[in-house]
Amino acid sequence: MLNEIKEIFENTKKQTPIVHTITNYVTVNDCANIILASGASPIMSDEIDDIEEIIGFAGSLIINMGTLNKRTVDSMIFAGKKANALNIPVVLDPVGLGATTFRNKTAEKLLKEINFSIIKGNVSELKFMATNLSNTSGVDASEDDMVTENNMEDTITMLKKLAKRLKAIIVATGEIDIITDGEKTYSVKNGSQLMSKITGSGCMLGCVVAAFAANNKSDLLNSTLGAVVTFGIAGEIGEKNFKGTGSFRVALIDAMSNITYKEIEEGAKINVK
Amino acid sequence: MLNEIKEIFENTKKQTPIVHTITNYVTVNDCANIILASGASPIMSDEIDDIEEIIGFAGSLIINMGTLNKRTVDSMIFAGKKANALNIPVVLDPVGLGATTFRNKTAEKLLKEINFSIIKGNVSELKFMATNLSNTSGVDASEDDMVTENNMEDTITMLKKLAKRLKAIIVATGEIDIITDGEKTYSVKNGSQLMSKITGSGCMLGCVVAAFAANNKSDLLNSTLGAVVTFGIAGEIGEKNFKGTGSFRVALIDAMSNITYKEIEEGAKINVK
Amino acid sequence: MLNEIKEIFENTKKQTPIVHTITNYVTVNDCANIILASGASPIMSDEIDDIEEIIGFAGSLIINMGTLNKRTVDSMIFAGKKANALNIPVVLDPVGLGATTFRNKTAEKLLKEINFSIIKGNVSELKFMATNLSNTSGVDASEDDMVTENNMEDTITMLKKLAKRLKAIIVATGEIDIITDGEKTYSVKNGSQLMSKITGSGCMLGCVVAAFAANNKSDLLNSTLGAVVTFGIAGEIGEKNFKGTGSFRVALIDAMSNITYKEIEEGAKINVK
Repeated sequence: MLNEIKEIFENTKKQTPIVHTITNYVTVNDCANIILASGASPIMSDEIDDIEEIIGFAGSLIINMGTLNKRTVDSMIFAGKKANALNIPVVLDPVGLGATTFRNKTAEKLLKEINFSIIKGNVSELKFMATNLSNTSGVDASEDDMVTENNMEDTITMLKKLAKRLKAIIVATGEIDIITDGEKTYSVKNGSQLMSKITGSGCMLGCVVAAFAANNKSDLLNSTLGAVVTFGIAGEIGEKNFKGTGSFRVALIDAMSNITYKEIEEGAKINVK
Repeated sequence: MLNEIKEIFENTKKQTPIVHTITNYVTVNDCANIILASGASPIMSDEIDDIEEIIGFAGSLIINMGTLNKRTVDSMIFAGKKANALNIPVVLDPVGLGATTFRNKTAEKLLKEINFSIIKGNVSELKFMATNLSNTSGVDASEDDMVTENNMEDTITMLKKLAKRLKAIIVATGEIDIITDGEKTYSVKNGSQLMSKITGSGCMLGCVVAAFAANNKSDLLNSTLGAVVTFGIAGEIGEKNFKGTGSFRVALIDAMSNITYKEIEEGAKINVK
Repeated sequence: MLNEIKEIFENTKKQTPIVHTITNYVTVNDCANIILASGASPIMSDEIDDIEEIIGFAGSLIINMGTLNKRTVDSMIFAGKKANALNIPVVLDPVGLGATTFRNKTAEKLLKEINFSIIKGNVSELKFMATNLSNTSGVDASEDDMVTENNMEDTITMLKKLAKRLKAIIVATGEIDIITDGEKTYSVKNGSQLMSKITGSGCMLGCVVAAFAANNKSDLLNSTLGAVVTFGIAGEIGEKNFKGTGSFRVALIDAMSNITYKEIEEGAKINVK
């Protein structure tokens, strides 16, 4: 497993593919900087007239539903379809799914029109996606939905079904992250509690997943696993010498820009489920 | 007074209410991080179809007029009315009021349609609000409008009238901050000159006020006073070990995320006027 | 040359002119902070109803084509024309020119309707502007377009022609920056490789150029040269004690806020071409 991640990680440093990013205006700058720190290059256009040509250069596409608005939904769908046609991996970050009807309907539309390669959300969002029944309020996962050792098996069963139904790799984030393609499933215990104390950790992880995918199209499961582990360990490194949440965010991007495979090898906490 | 602030401060650390934030795209990330550092959780949606349900989860709403555009004015009004109906505190930050006709008309509309609990602005903006006559240019207060020991009484008289007329708590920022509900008035001398050297200090203060309000609905005057003092002292802490304006912004968020009641007690410079 | 830059630099610290900034939502916060660090004050409005009055206060205008969308193109043109009528310097940062038809058409429209005082781009963007033939992909300059000692003469010839045709000062960024008004030409070797590892370096330079221009309307060539050199040296200072790309961005803004003329005098690497 670590051998695969080593290859994944080395690939991400070889080239600088473009990650077409359609995202929210809250964390967009962090998204751009973490994509650069991951070894890829972001283009953040959400203007529909711009999209066809940009997708043509792109190594992957990420669609993030934060600060969702009606103007960009059409751009999202158009970009997703074009990416599908060109066989470019498409990542979905369904921010706030379950919280509002507008977001739910938009996610339904996106899932209907686009084949996503990877979907990354918190457990509340993914539970809603799986069952249309959740107690989501806001953009954070509700505490009842946290993955613990106790409820992990049930959650994994749900996520595997979802992965199979959508033919996508599913990443569920939380204290324990779950990555599954419906067949193989991994749990990852890396990361820092501080990540929930800053805005953008989740959005940044989605972008790291997209950056790794752009570099590793032929092995998206290991690529996604590699992205989750790498970003989690970057969080742990960023947590050292903690001075506050403002500098933690800076330290997280620092760590991501500096991380070596040796640190990943030593820090990875992966379990095959 | 400090006893009340102690209670206010402790309340803000007990729960994590949602602050619905409709704001500008320049400082939105700082706003989100400072709300998190204040102990609340931000949702930044300005899409009208999203608002009704989000307001339903929210502990408070803040409307910030920076990068004002026609699309979001309707969202602001809709959100404000819904918040009023649900008795959720609504904060207004009338950025650039007095600078352009579009902002002036929008502010008029907002004040007509929404009952604001708290209005935070610089003295130029609030003077314009009070009198429709000001020499505002841009988004900073003009020097003639700075509160000094000499003109403080006149300014307070104006602000108290405004508070009574609008049935709102008024916060006027500057070297000396004034907080009044029309009856009780406080001046606060905390803060750092450096806050005017970075973008977003004013916007962040508005968000801190909203975060505190979400946690202290029953005592909004002391809540607002507590927010102003806490953020001011965070600025003073951030100023220590000054290395430049880039790191001051990081240090300000750090300080806000770490601040203890002991630091507030020792640092508060409040006068009853 | 350094004497002129000294005067330019001192002027930028005397007053605090307003820089009207119409820019993208990815790097807008960095743009605002770097304008403040340069000694000017940003207003970032892109709402057409807001523009006429804001231009009235402004010392300069910068139009940046990142995250270009149809809504703001009209605002850009309106702002540019008003600035021209008032003799306010207008800076263009044609982000992604050459990458998409929408951006190319928009740039054509902007160049037709507005007289730009200064145009700052990477060599790929400016080559496209000069010849309508380039191999731009994305928002970074392609490697074939990098200015080296070998191809510098050809590049300068192209840029001088462009400057004369558009009656504008042209700034081409890269490892070696070129500044020309068509008659006088300078090359600058300041800056740090790290600037390409964070988002926003290019956007920030455009804003620094606009901030300097607002303070030095009567000598825009030296003003632009001063801006390029100052920001480049700030990058070199920021590079010291490198800890990662997150903190480099902070250190760059720190350096810009603290830089002295002495550091510029000692660090400037300017050649008259």
